[in-house]
Amino acid sequence: MTIDALSGVKAVPLAKAYRLLNHGPTVLVSSAWQGKRNVMAASWNMALDFDPPKVSVVIDKNTWTRELIESSGEFVLNIPARSLAQETVDVGNCCGRDRDKFAEFGLSTFTGSNVAAPLLHRCVGWLECRVLPEPRIASLYDLFIAEVVAAWADPVDFSDGHWHFTAGRERSIHYIAGGVFFETGEEFAVKHSY
Amino acid sequence: MTIDALSGVKAVPLAKAYRLLNHGPTVLVSSAWQGKRNVMAASWNMALDFDPPKVSVVIDKNTWTRELIESSGEFVLNIPARSLAQETVDVGNCCGRDRDKFAEFGLSTFTGSNVAAPLLHRCVGWLECRVLPEPRIASLYDLFIAEVVAAWADPVDFSDGHWHFTAGRERSIHYIAGGVFFETGEEFAVKHSY
Repeated sequence: MTIDALSGVKAVPLAKAYRLLNHGPTVLVSSAWQGKRNVMAASWNMALDFDPPKVSVVIDKNTWTRELIESSGEFVLNIPARSLAQETVDVGNCCGRDRDKFAEFGLSTFTGSNVAAPLLHRCVGWLECRVLPEPRIASLYDLFIAEVVAAWADPVDFSDGHWHFTAGRERSIHYIAGGVFFETGEEFAVKHSY
Repeated sequence: MTIDALSGVKAVPLAKAYRLLNHGPTVLVSSAWQGKRNVMAASWNMALDFDPPKVSVVIDKNTWTRELIESSGEFVLNIPARSLAQETVDVGNCCGRDRDKFAEFGLSTFTGSNVAAPLLHRCVGWLECRVLPEPRIASLYDLFIAEVVAAWADPVDFSDGHWHFTAGRERSIHYIAGGVFFETGEEFAVKHSY
């Protein structure tokens, strides 16, 4: 199924896409190239620009994901909901070179609008990304910069540039180490002058 | 007062310093050069390496902080506690070129061990950082890479590489926009194979 036909999920305006990552959630990085695909977890991600939106993410040079991203020039940042926390750790603990992690861990996917990398169900937001090649920092620091070419969320969870983690809806997660996460917590506001 | 003499605060082993940022908190970036100093908020920060630890942070080229960091080659990432949320927004809403934000917003500071940039009270962690010059990505993307040369936390809040946001202790915060934050939420664990 393609994302346009997915019930409940709508495009996030690109100028607001950075806000999907602004609170620092752990993401799942999915990638695909010539019929092969993979998914890995990445706590080391951040927004990098507003409009056109850019992101940055660390992709270790020993990973199969790195090969797929360097070949395809594309990836998707999937923002997992809490119920996907076990799988988020599991896909970080093994290599996808000789196996299909999606099948192994029961991760169902759908198709995005701009890139071939698959989008995962049980996530609260998705950013389709196209790499802006910066070979020096990729080689030295494993750091990738990409432009966000499409972004998606269910408006029940995210609309008008804000998250709405209401009762009964799943929240995003923030990894520490050793299988331990923080759930995204209580929302609160302070005075803002503009 | 220097950090070594600060009651309760202890050095975080450098190999565990990345875990201060792994859950994606918003930080305050402090800087100093030749008697001038400034502080700004930055949601766009992430860990970049384990040991020696590196970090990455976005510093807009129009900011006074940018000038101070480019002159000094140093900065501190301060991880504000929730009670500092108002000031975190306030220092992001004004420029420090013609004023001292520390005095204006009542931000008391102490001295780190390796860099001249001040460390702020009412934070739960601190990373003293030395810039690894990468002029191309600084110019193109406002992206700075730095090595963490010292890291600090109160062991009541962070020890053995893990946060302990126990009852009565303040948590870190995650900015969205318009004065709205998420507090770092509930800790939970899933199975981890090693």
